[in-house]
Amino acid sequence: MINVVGIGPGSQETMTYKAMETIEQSDVIVGYKTYINLIEDLLKEKEVISNGMKQEIDRVKKAIEISKTGKTVSVISSGDAGVYGMAGLILELSEDEEVRIVSGVTASTAAAAVLGAPLMHDFCHISLSDLLTPLDLIYKRVALAAEGDFVICIYNPRSKGRPDYLKNAFEIMSKYKSNSTPVGIVKNACRENQEVQICTMDTIDYETVDMLSIVIVGNSSTYIKNNKIITKRGYEAKY
Amino acid sequence: MINVVGIGPGSQETMTYKAMETIEQSDVIVGYKTYINLIEDLLKEKEVISNGMKQEIDRVKKAIEISKTGKTVSVISSGDAGVYGMAGLILELSEDEEVRIVSGVTASTAAAAVLGAPLMHDFCHISLSDLLTPLDLIYKRVALAAEGDFVICIYNPRSKGRPDYLKNAFEIMSKYKSNSTPVGIVKNACRENQEVQICTMDTIDYETVDMLSIVIVGNSSTYIKNNKIITKRGYEAKY
Repeated sequence: MINVVGIGPGSQETMTYKAMETIEQSDVIVGYKTYINLIEDLLKEKEVISNGMKQEIDRVKKAIEISKTGKTVSVISSGDAGVYGMAGLILELSEDEEVRIVSGVTASTAAAAVLGAPLMHDFCHISLSDLLTPLDLIYKRVALAAEGDFVICIYNPRSKGRPDYLKNAFEIMSKYKSNSTPVGIVKNACRENQEVQICTMDTIDYETVDMLSIVIVGNSSTYIKNNKIITKRGYEAKY
Repeated sequence: MINVVGIGPGSQETMTYKAMETIEQSDVIVGYKTYINLIEDLLKEKEVISNGMKQEIDRVKKAIEISKTGKTVSVISSGDAGVYGMAGLILELSEDEEVRIVSGVTASTAAAAVLGAPLMHDFCHISLSDLLTPLDLIYKRVALAAEGDFVICIYNPRSKGRPDYLKNAFEIMSKYKSNSTPVGIVKNACRENQEVQICTMDTIDYETVDMLSIVIVGNSSTYIKNNKIITKRGYEAKY
């Protein structure tokens, strides 16, 4: 039996009861070491297998191998394991093992809660990482999402290896979105060292954004009030 | 003090510790009666104010009024209160009250976990409800999202008052997406009466979809294996 468990954005209090229970009932926990560290209190009497970034396939193969011995394995992922997470790879590589996916609070909605209420209307998730996706497809999606006046949640917005993708994405969006569109940046959402910035499309400082940040760009109804970002749902027009 | 609490998709086990703790520490709970019923076990010694659909503004005004008396109020929402939920309206209508948003597992990721792993790549949320949004904007978003090869999560897909919007949306998507694109439909995700259907764009039976359903339409890399929907992340191309 393999569980793929989303542990939520960070601290244990943002984990669901089901995630906690699933981990408690597992013999072996497999995960990227940064996420293992987030829940180490829960893992004291568990067999733990952790490794580094870009070793996802190794982790999945290891988990499948262990489950074949009859042990219950939980592969953990931060946020929701089904959003750019480990759930897909486990299902792709598993054969007849039973796989159960346990949802968690995903990074975008955790960041949104910190910023106010930016996701009150139709929104997109776009990852700017071109490790596994062609860059032209990423930019095409950014353009279409902006043209559709979606609120846009940007995952993996900026790293040392790709310092300019976020700036390029903002240039593409600025063809469709006003320069005064509110932008929220949350780094380490719900973790001890959480940092929050609220700005607009023309005042963002790209240098402050890194791989641990989520960037949320509003739609044409989004505004800032008392330092919170709010996207109108449209009630005032209706009632 | 007003908390806006996402209670997750349904049963208590999909709630976070923080949501549970916030409700426990509140004097008054305000919510749509269907959601109040989902967590009635937790509310035995609480003052509870519930009302029906389309009475969101009344609920919010009531919550703000109560918080002015010094009581701690929690307004509850299913899923994540920040995704098409109550968080925005509370922030819009509140003045100097302290407002805290507590995230939950949102409906799309809960449905995705039941279906397999459809959200492994860039995806959109689009609500087909035109109560608060012009229908032409909704269809424009459907077209742009399909053109961008996004995975598309459809909220409020079909009701008695708008039986044809989902069919119309599928016709628009079929200009860009193959007829064999996997589609998942989850009704009452994570609740007792959960129903799951996996089909393709050309085999969907619209009649089986209602307002309590989430519909997830894959991208060009999505496939079905062992009755699970999987969207490839792209590892096989990379490694």
